[in-house]
Amino acid sequence: MGAEPTLQWTLQRPAAQYSNKIATVDRGTGERRTWSEVADRVNCLSSGLLGLDLKIGDRVGVLMLNSGRHFELWFAIPGAGMVMNDLNYRLAEEELAFICGDSDVKVLFVDDNYLDTGRALLQRVESLHTLVWTGPGTQAPEGCVAYETLVATPPVELPPQHHDGLAAIFYTGGTTGLPKGAMLTHRNLTANAMHGVAVMGITSRDKYLHAGPQFHLADGSMTFAVSWVGGAHVFIPAFEPTATVAALAEEQCTISLLVPTMLGMVLASGALEGADLTALRALMYGASPMPGEVQRRVAEGFGCEMFQLYGMTEASPIATSMDGEDHRRGMAGEEPYASRLRSAGSPVPGVRCEVRREDGSLADIGEPGEIYIQGPNIMAGYWNRPEETAHALVDGWYRSGDVAWQDADGYLYVVDRAKDMIISGGENIYTSEVENAVYLHQGVAEAAVFGIPHEKFGETVHAEVVPKPGATITEEELIEHCRAHIAGYKVPRSVTFRSSDDPLPKSGAGKILKRELREPHWVGRDRHVG
Amino acid sequence: MGAEPTLQWTLQRPAAQYSNKIATVDRGTGERRTWSEVADRVNCLSSGLLGLDLKIGDRVGVLMLNSGRHFELWFAIPGAGMVMNDLNYRLAEEELAFICGDSDVKVLFVDDNYLDTGRALLQRVESLHTLVWTGPGTQAPEGCVAYETLVATPPVELPPQHHDGLAAIFYTGGTTGLPKGAMLTHRNLTANAMHGVAVMGITSRDKYLHAGPQFHLADGSMTFAVSWVGGAHVFIPAFEPTATVAALAEEQCTISLLVPTMLGMVLASGALEGADLTALRALMYGASPMPGEVQRRVAEGFGCEMFQLYGMTEASPIATSMDGEDHRRGMAGEEPYASRLRSAGSPVPGVRCEVRREDGSLADIGEPGEIYIQGPNIMAGYWNRPEETAHALVDGWYRSGDVAWQDADGYLYVVDRAKDMIISGGENIYTSEVENAVYLHQGVAEAAVFGIPHEKFGETVHAEVVPKPGATITEEELIEHCRAHIAGYKVPRSVTFRSSDDPLPKSGAGKILKRELREPHWVGRDRHVG
Repeated sequence: MGAEPTLQWTLQRPAAQYSNKIATVDRGTGERRTWSEVADRVNCLSSGLLGLDLKIGDRVGVLMLNSGRHFELWFAIPGAGMVMNDLNYRLAEEELAFICGDSDVKVLFVDDNYLDTGRALLQRVESLHTLVWTGPGTQAPEGCVAYETLVATPPVELPPQHHDGLAAIFYTGGTTGLPKGAMLTHRNLTANAMHGVAVMGITSRDKYLHAGPQFHLADGSMTFAVSWVGGAHVFIPAFEPTATVAALAEEQCTISLLVPTMLGMVLASGALEGADLTALRALMYGASPMPGEVQRRVAEGFGCEMFQLYGMTEASPIATSMDGEDHRRGMAGEEPYASRLRSAGSPVPGVRCEVRREDGSLADIGEPGEIYIQGPNIMAGYWNRPEETAHALVDGWYRSGDVAWQDADGYLYVVDRAKDMIISGGENIYTSEVENAVYLHQGVAEAAVFGIPHEKFGETVHAEVVPKPGATITEEELIEHCRAHIAGYKVPRSVTFRSSDDPLPKSGAGKILKRELREPHWVGRDRHVG
Repeated sequence: MGAEPTLQWTLQRPAAQYSNKIATVDRGTGERRTWSEVADRVNCLSSGLLGLDLKIGDRVGVLMLNSGRHFELWFAIPGAGMVMNDLNYRLAEEELAFICGDSDVKVLFVDDNYLDTGRALLQRVESLHTLVWTGPGTQAPEGCVAYETLVATPPVELPPQHHDGLAAIFYTGGTTGLPKGAMLTHRNLTANAMHGVAVMGITSRDKYLHAGPQFHLADGSMTFAVSWVGGAHVFIPAFEPTATVAALAEEQCTISLLVPTMLGMVLASGALEGADLTALRALMYGASPMPGEVQRRVAEGFGCEMFQLYGMTEASPIATSMDGEDHRRGMAGEEPYASRLRSAGSPVPGVRCEVRREDGSLADIGEPGEIYIQGPNIMAGYWNRPEETAHALVDGWYRSGDVAWQDADGYLYVVDRAKDMIISGGENIYTSEVENAVYLHQGVAEAAVFGIPHEKFGETVHAEVVPKPGATITEEELIEHCRAHIAGYKVPRSVTFRSSDDPLPKSGAGKILKRELREPHWVGRDRHVG
């Protein structure tokens, strides 16, 4: 019977077939490594991990900007039989502590930027016993193990990997207000990698720029797709327009994935002027709306194909795509392509999507319903959340919570997002998390949080609040209050107050009718998900 | 947990996402069908099959030239929970009877060309109870059910498919002289389809010409790869140079797969003159040697990219590939690409190959050894052949029997073929099968069969024979004798006789040293496998 691939296959192949070819270019440290160097380092790193008081299946955290070392950890942690938990560095310390505690992270990799946060987590998180500092060199800061010391470990025999074994946990916001960990197996991530290679036509001649954060699966999952075919990876520590364009031009990158907000920032920065992007063949985008006019400006400004991906962490993450020719014909005004530019694309080979009514029956063409997704890329469940897992995984399908309608050719038009989510500048913000923070303020009687349009970020977080009788709250005060509890990017940018005798509109069942509150802000605008 | 794809997914996707797009163009019958038409027909056909006194898992045979109906059966048979056994129509009736009997074929689909053979098999094969005639229309010849009658069956609920379920059995020659059935699962065939899409970059805009026989997995497996992405299929009944070029030109085909002998025949026919092949983007070839000079003439003559695939039925079939740019740079004389034109390419993403010594250890770079292959595409075993299965599938690896060495970048150079196989005009011929037929002649004391070079077919079958003392045999007589037992393409084209006191050279263990006999014929020539 056929053997199923594990993540190890995606590194073993380039190490064997492209050994002397450049694998990684770290623009932060200046390091360039070949596939054989990377494979050797990963092998030693896995060996070193086994010496850090870890058992097979233990969770290992990562809190880092983009880098070649960050990349190596995506292979080395699952390669040692451990489970990677790559953390969103924009989260508040309280949120990070919750996530590390929830998944019992035992070892945490931090770079210089997050050393202090790492030390604070070491104090707060009971399971956490070791900090690994990921700077270059073996002189680690006090109390830390040096990454390069692990890389100097003599290689030992590593535990066998299994395709159904857990490789990573990625935390995503939850409707309950608490983040939950999507458990991804080797099979999930290798299936998604193969789907990515197939739809993007990635080859050994591609050079992928990691400009978006690696901790996001949208960028991170390209680790396996690009590596498997023997392409190269270029890293900048974090997105910034000038650094992005410089990396694309100087390293002759052929592909990258950026969210629309980043693309807009590059266009506005003027960094494209005079930049030689002839090598760039395609830009992928996703995770938030992108008006047709911006698509055109991006295609012209970067002089390359556009490629849309839609998905979510639970799908490892690709579910649907819209390819270069779809965009080209759409931007030229040809129907049905022009109308489809507003869609999220159609299901990729290997992934199935259905739009269903509340009773589970298939919606008609054009009729909105919930997107159900099926494929080898669908997560194994949520870490330690049997109830939420049972709700999300039903009869071999994943219930995304996103609401969309499908046209006759399977293109999905997302009309409302899962779990009442706001996507601002490419970051997913679960309104329930924000509402929980707002409600922690003593003067708040009722609150609803939703997205309102914003030129640069697509949308921003807005709160509508009913104060308790007699209470007085200012916008500034409430925003400051939230900042203490949740990541800065989740904090409301604006607040409107109703009078305390003017409650929020509710359904017969008492559910706040958030759509009624939101709609006046969106008159004449699209709020689709790209 | 993620749901694994079955073959049904590869038809469901185009039916949903490309419903009104042309799926099949049958140049034999003139029929053109959309994806929604094909999906509806397949659904009814599966339903009709369930009414033919068949149980889930029963084997259903196919003995047909290329056609749209032949294509539909690749979905309809596994879609009804049955196992497809697509038969090589060039085999002798005796061989077909053995294969149908070995796999207990119960229903056999035959077109007009093989109706007589089908009727003969119905007499000879005990398990076989129904012949289905696959001509257009519902007026079946006597004793046959009409294919179109099955297609008129009202659709019923079909049994669920499972990725590990058996979808097809493909017979391949055996070292014992008896063909054996490689059992392929849904997972095997869908994995190979995804690998094909990934390495060939197949998209919905591709139109694939089925010019080689569909019963060969090399062509047949493209059924799933091209369908999954929503491409189109064009069929000619059988390969013939003028019909092939006419189909490529008139249907604006973008890709096809031909064996080198066919490519050489097209070049020699003059059919390319004046033909508009601008739509053709790539020709895949495989299954037999292709000298560099021929590669160049093909690339020029067809004006497209060359793409090499190497594999075998047991691997569903793709194991390695060499892409367009490899060929382009090689044909331009650039090293190492020029030398690599003689290789069989390097392992595709998703498939692993190792070259091992007889003791199972890894061979060094440049050192010949046996090719071992691993991946989700590797067969489940040989039908009812536990011993041969145990020999072929070892610790999650498939032992191909092919001997090759690998260069530092994983390119495989095949130096000797599995099971002493001859590849003549793209057909695999197992010498043991031919030797068995030769030995059936009463006057033969010893015989060795091997391939000798041939301009058009790559190589042809040659026999070296020691007659029994006192016996007199002529070349003509022995060839005629063989023709009664084996397929015409397997019959020796030439025979040399030794005197009865001049036995064949043997090893210490008494094994005939066939390489010693073969080598003088190949001085100064390549006999690698493409």
